[in-house]
Amino acid sequence: MENLLYWIGLAAVAVSAVTGVLDAGRKRMDLVGVAMVGMATALGGGTVRDVLLDRPVFWISNQTYLLVAFATTVLVFFVVRGLKLPQRLFLIPDAIGLALFAITGTQIALDLNAPWLVASLLGVTTGVVGGVLRDVLCNEVPLIFVPGEPYASAAWGGALTLIGLQALGVSPVIAAWSGMAVVLTLRLIGVVFAIRLPTYSERK
Amino acid sequence: MENLLYWIGLAAVAVSAVTGVLDAGRKRMDLVGVAMVGMATALGGGTVRDVLLDRPVFWISNQTYLLVAFATTVLVFFVVRGLKLPQRLFLIPDAIGLALFAITGTQIALDLNAPWLVASLLGVTTGVVGGVLRDVLCNEVPLIFVPGEPYASAAWGGALTLIGLQALGVSPVIAAWSGMAVVLTLRLIGVVFAIRLPTYSERK
Amino acid sequence: MENLLYWIGLAAVAVSAVTGVLDAGRKRMDLVGVAMVGMATALGGGTVRDVLLDRPVFWISNQTYLLVAFATTVLVFFVVRGLKLPQRLFLIPDAIGLALFAITGTQIALDLNAPWLVASLLGVTTGVVGGVLRDVLCNEVPLIFVPGEPYASAAWGGALTLIGLQALGVSPVIAAWSGMAVVLTLRLIGVVFAIRLPTYSERK
Repeated sequence: MENLLYWIGLAAVAVSAVTGVLDAGRKRMDLVGVAMVGMATALGGGTVRDVLLDRPVFWISNQTYLLVAFATTVLVFFVVRGLKLPQRLFLIPDAIGLALFAITGTQIALDLNAPWLVASLLGVTTGVVGGVLRDVLCNEVPLIFVPGEPYASAAWGGALTLIGLQALGVSPVIAAWSGMAVVLTLRLIGVVFAIRLPTYSERK
Repeated sequence: MENLLYWIGLAAVAVSAVTGVLDAGRKRMDLVGVAMVGMATALGGGTVRDVLLDRPVFWISNQTYLLVAFATTVLVFFVVRGLKLPQRLFLIPDAIGLALFAITGTQIALDLNAPWLVASLLGVTTGVVGGVLRDVLCNEVPLIFVPGEPYASAAWGGALTLIGLQALGVSPVIAAWSGMAVVLTLRLIGVVFAIRLPTYSERK
Repeated sequence: MENLLYWIGLAAVAVSAVTGVLDAGRKRMDLVGVAMVGMATALGGGTVRDVLLDRPVFWISNQTYLLVAFATTVLVFFVVRGLKLPQRLFLIPDAIGLALFAITGTQIALDLNAPWLVASLLGVTTGVVGGVLRDVLCNEVPLIFVPGEPYASAAWGGALTLIGLQALGVSPVIAAWSGMAVVLTLRLIGVVFAIRLPTYSERK
């Protein structure tokens, strides 16, 4: 499980860096600006998780994360700048990053004996912070606030799945994969079918 | 005093969550978006205070805060969505939250032996961060930057009152209530009478 | 070296406070709003550095920084409000603050045995965060994202100079001054000659 968490963490960093580069690139930033956004997206969620839990920040205690984020950012920058990609394509790596980070965040909080509600919300936080940073830095409305499309709720559903399955005695590894599948499914169904959650004021 | 701080903290969380819901609701966010803004407003100031002071984050070590923030958010969401409330009404819970958080922040810093200037500024920070997060997430100019209306200065006045009275030997409980009264009075007088502080460039 | 770092830190705080006041003043904020922006600019970068490295926050453990930031802010507010200064003038204190903070951030991380890539990025972070906070609070595009002008890359060049010279056996004090000179030179050359880094999409 320890090992699985490590690889999920590296994958989450890489895939989030990709979304950062795609988003920043649309804004005509230069290489360094794009790199800053890519690294902030890749490292933001886990950093907030570690600061809140008062554990060593993951990319400071292990340089590998930083190298992965950096290499991904530079590579994607040079590969993608020539291509014309459909704008909504970046929702797919974004959904994967959300799923991976939500599960690592929840599991790490559980390992530190956080109660279930705290652990699930730390999972949501870990999942969403990178993307919020990216969108704020790129001056866009964060995906999390697009009305009606499940985003934080998809992450929360996955976190609760992980916690619930472990409470039922399912092996942590299977619970983790199931949790990620739930996040991805909820998020992508929401994007594709434009499912709507209740809003504050009815639109009449 | 310990006990008073705990109840003030819970009240501050609840009342800040209300302002978050009212503000986010105006932006036609859905339930989850509103909940995120409500929780960020309720928990943001205290979280920054705890991270700066390197003490355990309050809502992670005690789940009650989280439950209060969550329940308040959902309750207010469903109660208020039908009503048409005057927009400036939310300045009242906002002022109460500012007062409560400023006093808990200052007192907690004093308990950790922070010098008076540091303690008073941590009080101001605890008071204002939740509201700044709320306004940034809702894409509005933070109340703290509305020119001329006392906001941070009201919080600072209350923090200095608390510190001053304790230095004069007044009981901590009375000092705390006096501090809160000062914040509320300064803030509401400012709002009602539109008192103006000096600005950078004179408007001729 | 310990001593040099302390004085560099104080100078960085003062000079960053100046840029905050100049920027906030253009927005017709009142004294308290300007003071908040000034203090956030002066203390933001070092605060993030200390939280990431899990060391005590510098302005909480030593009140002097706070007094310097506060006094500079109020002083500059009253001196400058009468003058008409050219808008780009504030790029000079901003470049100096960037250089000073980048070097202290890198050196402090090295002293805590961070590997070189982590240390250099913490230097960049320390250098840029204050200015990003300032620009976000003043609702401007952060200087770091002005396409083509070296900013983060200037800070990174200086951090790598510091690390490289020390690895070559140069005395820490000389390495620190050289690093600062590199940041300043890269940044000011970039501003004056409008050097351009490669951007994502070619402008045809």
